Amino acid sequence: MNNNAIGVFDSGLGGLTCVRELNRLLPAEDIVYFGDTARIPYGTRSRKTVMSYAAQDAAFIKRHNVKIIIAACGTVSSVAAEDESFAGDTLFTGVVLPAARAACAATKNGKIGVIGTSATVRTGAYEKAVRSICPGFEVIGVACPLFVPLVENGFAVPGDPVTALVADRYLAPLKSAGVDVLILGCTHYPLMEDAIRSCVGGDVALISSGAEAAKYACTLLTSLKMLNGSEGGGTNTYYTSDSARMFAESASLYLGGEVNGKVIKVSLEELTRFQA
Amino acid sequence: MNNNAIGVFDSGLGGLTCVRELNRLLPAEDIVYFGDTARIPYGTRSRKTVMSYAAQDAAFIKRHNVKIIIAACGTVSSVAAEDESFAGDTLFTGVVLPAARAACAATKNGKIGVIGTSATVRTGAYEKAVRSICPGFEVIGVACPLFVPLVENGFAVPGDPVTALVADRYLAPLKSAGVDVLILGCTHYPLMEDAIRSCVGGDVALISSGAEAAKYACTLLTSLKMLNGSEGGGTNTYYTSDSARMFAESASLYLGGEVNGKVIKVSLEELTRFQA
Repeated sequence: MNNNAIGVFDSGLGGLTCVRELNRLLPAEDIVYFGDTARIPYGTRSRKTVMSYAAQDAAFIKRHNVKIIIAACGTVSSVAAEDESFAGDTLFTGVVLPAARAACAATKNGKIGVIGTSATVRTGAYEKAVRSICPGFEVIGVACPLFVPLVENGFAVPGDPVTALVADRYLAPLKSAGVDVLILGCTHYPLMEDAIRSCVGGDVALISSGAEAAKYACTLLTSLKMLNGSEGGGTNTYYTSDSARMFAESASLYLGGEVNGKVIKVSLEELTRFQA
Repeated sequence: MNNNAIGVFDSGLGGLTCVRELNRLLPAEDIVYFGDTARIPYGTRSRKTVMSYAAQDAAFIKRHNVKIIIAACGTVSSVAAEDESFAGDTLFTGVVLPAARAACAATKNGKIGVIGTSATVRTGAYEKAVRSICPGFEVIGVACPLFVPLVENGFAVPGDPVTALVADRYLAPLKSAGVDVLILGCTHYPLMEDAIRSCVGGDVALISSGAEAAKYACTLLTSLKMLNGSEGGGTNTYYTSDSARMFAESASLYLGGEVNGKVIKVSLEELTRFQA
């Protein structure tokens, strides 16, 4: 039994798709979340900058005595896939391996599609993860850099023609390749599910990388007997590097309901002091 | 005569549309440019965060003994319109007033459109600037938050149907209002000129805020007898907070030619030490 919180961080709000699943699976757990909204997006930045931001984010989360850190960010998870030193000796997971395992279990024809930010796709991290599990599987990765701006600027409304057109263009190579599983390799993408589903059709299984990371954390904490033993529900606490009001206004979209916890602003000056 | 450099900063690469015009008008001047590519975009962030980034950017530029600072960023110029304290006693201009003056001179029917980031339009800075010059003019401001991501992700190609669709949607209220001048209130937007032009038609005058700021700086330095007296051409030096390679790869698109100077990375740690 371990009553410390579960720590989750992301470049912004996308990681809340992981928190939503954690709340569903593990309602007794306390969650500490950090979303780096003053420096989002990470997916268009260099490897060095992403690593530096991720190290600061993880160090900030660690100060809250968490029992596990989840990098609920496709970009951080991909770029840091072979270098998770910033988590130190705290239990850690990104979203890449959990999503790759789920995709390998779901595919029937061995053809798996992956969509993510430019930085994510450039690393080939999802492909490597899938091949480490099932070496014979084919993996097709496509960068969809406009998906996050579409979500953040109100274009991810079912039936929006702009979003449909962008989705059609990005996803065409995956349709031609005949993938039967598609990994949403960025935690923002579940909000684009309607457009993605309309484009790829009903027979392709969509894997939410944030939700899979939550399921994996649940399995890990259960098997290590590290679940929270308290009676009653856990509390969520959200930290953000830009305006708390702006975070709270948008968060319900990702959480699928009211923002269920305090939202606290942490300044970048404070954040950079937490370097691992 | 003053042989110090002209300092220019922006959230990223958009300010290079101002540098391009400075190079054309004042080929003898040295230019020091800073693009905050590790923290771009500014236009979706809170006022407080934008002011804090702008203060650091300006303080960094000031260390290079510049004779004038140009905030070649629509967001910074709008948000800081009534608080330019971060420039200290150095000569300073943003893009708002120069663009507003040009728009007032160009309009025949007194109906001026302004497009910019969400932060820019929220401030109403362009409207206030126009009305301070010509109180009777009508100003219609529209936020176009997807334009910068479209430019940065390769969608600003003449004839691209996604870009045309987005431009049509954003610009529809300006067409209905019958504006005869449109201020491109974000220094990225000249790269969207084809799509904007196709949408609004040939009779609407487009005002590039970056180019207008360059023209204003030229007028100011000339009238104050602060132009560079050296023989021969000036040098451009570009500083960027993310990868120098990535900056150099994209910069030619904004400069309309080869990157004509050294590109040097400055770390965020170094940048935040330069707080005004």
